[in-house]
Amino acid sequence: MNISDLGESGLIARLKTILPTASPDLLIGIGDDCAAIKLDDNRLLLATCDIQVEGEHFHRYYFTPYQIGRRALAVNLSDIAAMGGKPTFVFISLGLPPDLPTEDFDDLQRGIADIANEFGVIVAGGNLSRSPAGLIVDIFLLGETTSDRLLTRSGARPGDRVFVTGHLGASIAGLRLLQAIHANPDKSELAPRSSQLVTAHTQPTPRIAAGQAIAASGWATAMIDISDGLAADLGHLCEQSGVGAEIRQTSLPIPPELPEVAAAWGVSPLDLALYGGEDYELLFILKPDTSDAVIAAINESAGVTITEIGRILPKEDGCRLLSDSVARIPLPPRGWDHFSSPPYEVGGGVRGELKEDSRNP
Amino acid sequence: MNISDLGESGLIARLKTILPTASPDLLIGIGDDCAAIKLDDNRLLLATCDIQVEGEHFHRYYFTPYQIGRRALAVNLSDIAAMGGKPTFVFISLGLPPDLPTEDFDDLQRGIADIANEFGVIVAGGNLSRSPAGLIVDIFLLGETTSDRLLTRSGARPGDRVFVTGHLGASIAGLRLLQAIHANPDKSELAPRSSQLVTAHTQPTPRIAAGQAIAASGWATAMIDISDGLAADLGHLCEQSGVGAEIRQTSLPIPPELPEVAAAWGVSPLDLALYGGEDYELLFILKPDTSDAVIAAINESAGVTITEIGRILPKEDGCRLLSDSVARIPLPPRGWDHFSSPPYEVGGGVRGELKEDSRNP
Repeated sequence: MNISDLGESGLIARLKTILPTASPDLLIGIGDDCAAIKLDDNRLLLATCDIQVEGEHFHRYYFTPYQIGRRALAVNLSDIAAMGGKPTFVFISLGLPPDLPTEDFDDLQRGIADIANEFGVIVAGGNLSRSPAGLIVDIFLLGETTSDRLLTRSGARPGDRVFVTGHLGASIAGLRLLQAIHANPDKSELAPRSSQLVTAHTQPTPRIAAGQAIAASGWATAMIDISDGLAADLGHLCEQSGVGAEIRQTSLPIPPELPEVAAAWGVSPLDLALYGGEDYELLFILKPDTSDAVIAAINESAGVTITEIGRILPKEDGCRLLSDSVARIPLPPRGWDHFSSPPYEVGGGVRGELKEDSRNP
Repeated sequence: MNISDLGESGLIARLKTILPTASPDLLIGIGDDCAAIKLDDNRLLLATCDIQVEGEHFHRYYFTPYQIGRRALAVNLSDIAAMGGKPTFVFISLGLPPDLPTEDFDDLQRGIADIANEFGVIVAGGNLSRSPAGLIVDIFLLGETTSDRLLTRSGARPGDRVFVTGHLGASIAGLRLLQAIHANPDKSELAPRSSQLVTAHTQPTPRIAAGQAIAASGWATAMIDISDGLAADLGHLCEQSGVGAEIRQTSLPIPPELPEVAAAWGVSPLDLALYGGEDYELLFILKPDTSDAVIAAINESAGVTITEIGRILPKEDGCRLLSDSVARIPLPPRGWDHFSSPPYEVGGGVRGELKEDSRNP
């Protein structure tokens, strides 16, 4: 048996049985967006890491070094956002191909620097190594929050209301667009018309302000960032909260550019929104009686539109999609898995074989 | 120009001009063994990371998965030791080849778990990814210390005394032995006779207790761990302290098994001790009038023999070796550089071309 047979969640379950993971000061350990470590009666240290490997998470033919650096920090910032935290210090481990041009090295740093400056993050350390096999960018990010504001994946209760920030499905569409243009440069006229989709993939915006506003409101019960796709991350949140959920198809915030691009590939915009992943939006849960004024205040502070997309159900109801035909369809927690999903391919089955496998039954 | 032309220190200098690195709470940033972040008036958070890439830092033909895991955490523990700190929480980023046997995955975790348990470290999080190109183990380790005990690389003053823990040169000899046995299994009879050298390479012992005893003594002025080799790391310490140093060749703690193994390769034990690297011992500096009783107390608490090997000089004297013929020889800060040194090779010029280049003139 090898690790591909187990998948990511199987491997995590396995390592948790071997490694020492419990400490009174570790309020949240393996399995949430960030770890939360108690510093004193109220202050919490948040910590998260995310490794990006060339050929697995990105290819240099469609990401510039600037975008690779910027994005590597962005996805970690998204994890701090999902805990309602404030990012503080970052550590950067780089595995560098020996023939990497110095200009590319500088551009990678500039990408990190720009988003670090944007969010007030200071680079406190790191590690450089030669890599015989492609570029590796591993980011470790610290942040802080307080015990009374901490939001995890595990607090949702039946009757609660389900919201997301921004749009869903843009990132996967942007990726496919980049790959299609690479495979067939004649299609490059598509790029400008879909620049928002491409930007969603290459330069995702971490929802730090939104996460803080949601946590500070006092009305949220759970939060997660959407990295594996709405269906998968809703599944994670529901599993850890011990609940089910119903998502209304007609409420999903699908970007206006998406239907045309999806049609060009013969996939449905709905599939891209549900299973695409890497949107780095926040999925968050508010109590049933949250007032419109509170929601408006979150929306105002968030700097991005928030949309109510469904409600939390008892666990026995599972996760399901209320389709536009009013049918209730099971919503499998399917999405990106680094071990059971195929690697990126140009023009082929990308990220979970959307075309063949991931349509709703 | 590509990054190999710049070398590791050139790249670090370059990225420091691009990245935001200054904050009032960041007492020590890029350039020491760990970052030190102020938590309150006295408490400091320590943080360090170290990435280990297959084919660059190790090969699976001479490291077991258990040893790879154990060693990856050990080298980070050594950085916490070099600041006199106590390790607390660890985060593990893994890039895994899809065909990695599950048993190897488990053994890797067991290696991490054993040394984590030995030093009271809790695994708080991490990240799993498929890696299309070999195993990647990136460890991020947190620790703590207090402002009054913090030891950096920059406090040494002329007249101070230079000490090391344990032995020097064992690790590189152990590596060469493993490579020679791989290239020529007939030589496997060498292994048992040199098992301490092999163990020094495959399972280095981080000097946590020693680091804490040295910092707590109140007599130390600077400390660094020896990862790149004595000459290189002494060079780092002297550069950051603005001093020179003289090392007495006859005082160097060369392991008893080393001369025979070195002779078999036609290299001098002295070269291995000065330039070999990866010993993960501590190089530390005590004030001139440190009493024998203080030194004995450090030695007792350290759990490893400590040896006085030289003294700190004014900067203009540079770093030099007082050879057994009483000649003073310049000691170049040469050692392992991930960008300007050749990759590991079996039987060939390994880690800094010891045989051809690194002998003293």
